[in-house]
Amino acid sequence: MARGMNHVFFVGALARDPELRYTPNGTPVCDLTIAGEDQVLGSDGQTRSLPWYHRVGLMGKPAETAAEQFKAGSAVAVEGSMEQRSWDDAASGQKRSMISIKALRVDGVSRPESDLVRDSGGGFRLQNALNEAVLVGNLGRKPELRYTPSGDAVVGFSIAVSESWKGRDGNWQEKTHWLDINAWRELAELVANLDKGDSVLVHGRIKNETWTDRDGQKRNSTKVEATRVEALTRGPAPSGAV
Amino acid sequence: MARGMNHVFFVGALARDPELRYTPNGTPVCDLTIAGEDQVLGSDGQTRSLPWYHRVGLMGKPAETAAEQFKAGSAVAVEGSMEQRSWDDAASGQKRSMISIKALRVDGVSRPESDLVRDSGGGFRLQNALNEAVLVGNLGRKPELRYTPSGDAVVGFSIAVSESWKGRDGNWQEKTHWLDINAWRELAELVANLDKGDSVLVHGRIKNETWTDRDGQKRNSTKVEATRVEALTRGPAPSGAV
Repeated sequence: MARGMNHVFFVGALARDPELRYTPNGTPVCDLTIAGEDQVLGSDGQTRSLPWYHRVGLMGKPAETAAEQFKAGSAVAVEGSMEQRSWDDAASGQKRSMISIKALRVDGVSRPESDLVRDSGGGFRLQNALNEAVLVGNLGRKPELRYTPSGDAVVGFSIAVSESWKGRDGNWQEKTHWLDINAWRELAELVANLDKGDSVLVHGRIKNETWTDRDGQKRNSTKVEATRVEALTRGPAPSGAV
Repeated sequence: MARGMNHVFFVGALARDPELRYTPNGTPVCDLTIAGEDQVLGSDGQTRSLPWYHRVGLMGKPAETAAEQFKAGSAVAVEGSMEQRSWDDAASGQKRSMISIKALRVDGVSRPESDLVRDSGGGFRLQNALNEAVLVGNLGRKPELRYTPSGDAVVGFSIAVSESWKGRDGNWQEKTHWLDINAWRELAELVANLDKGDSVLVHGRIKNETWTDRDGQKRNSTKVEATRVEALTRGPAPSGAV
């Protein structure tokens, strides 16, 4: 399995004031909702403005600094990674998971007031925002190509992105994040040729989808809309310890 | 001074075979020349194909694997950082420095033969390549706006990008890389409003320039052509140890 790569870059505005909380063991966590509008060139040659709202979590001392420094409408640059968290839903007994962004750093950005858009919920979004993900992971299963009624090829697939780090006890820890990707047209056709287990490099923008499930509950998902997919080749078997 | 950020992403082809060498203390180093063509939309609305050739160095065990796995014409994806190396030129007695890319990882990419271009020197370049740098650093001096004969604003400036890491002895090491950036038109005008010491986030593509100096020697430089510049704000003074 390919070593995972997981980078996220945002430039956006705080949709609302930051929320500072503390974990049971006293670690500060700052929850931010970062919002922006991407200018995306459609296949019809038209530029559309696509709003996005993403939850970003910052931990440790920088969390307290961010809670002090930023407020609703502050423009910020975020470097982070996509993180999948899973839990058992007490009400339904079902396994649930969500994707959020773990911030490595959040910097204030100097933007004129006129770059801010006030949304219908009283929040803020930043125009000319940036929303970029760069990932390497392995396909969970063979992707299936579908076609929209207008004939566009589309493929939805999941990649397993591994993360490893040295824990406080000096031992290596590993975690796998399952991330959902969408690809359209030529990219979709390229992806449809790949197999379960194949490694891919994905560039794209992170988007939200909200829908109502069969039980009438509001659900939402976070996916990557791919702008580039590269199939990675398998290297030779390693001839020794790394 | 803002903490530095320094990411480089390439998708390109090996212009020629990789070169494997060993440092005096036995560490393997693989030198790669990665080459590609970017499709860049000019201010005149025309798309131009801009070729690039960049030196990439990979160290340790992955260097030996790369030297085995890749050859001239292999398509690869590189994740790395821009690195400035300085030395005293024995011939002229002058201080010289160059920018190269330090690779964190190099993965093989599956591309059809038809994506390769053979250049006039017998090397290879990859079409539909990727060439992206994401940097945070501090301005070395106040930038000076200039205008081309056709009236386009342009600004050249340098940023100090700090890098820190924990050495083998457990102590933190620090190094500063001075990187040259070019910005054009609206971006140039934004940058011209900034001052010495200000922090910026820069997105751009890495380009080479070759010229002949007064002594008739061929020289070349590596710069970032900015596609986005964001001025970072100064945070509040930290209220305690991080």
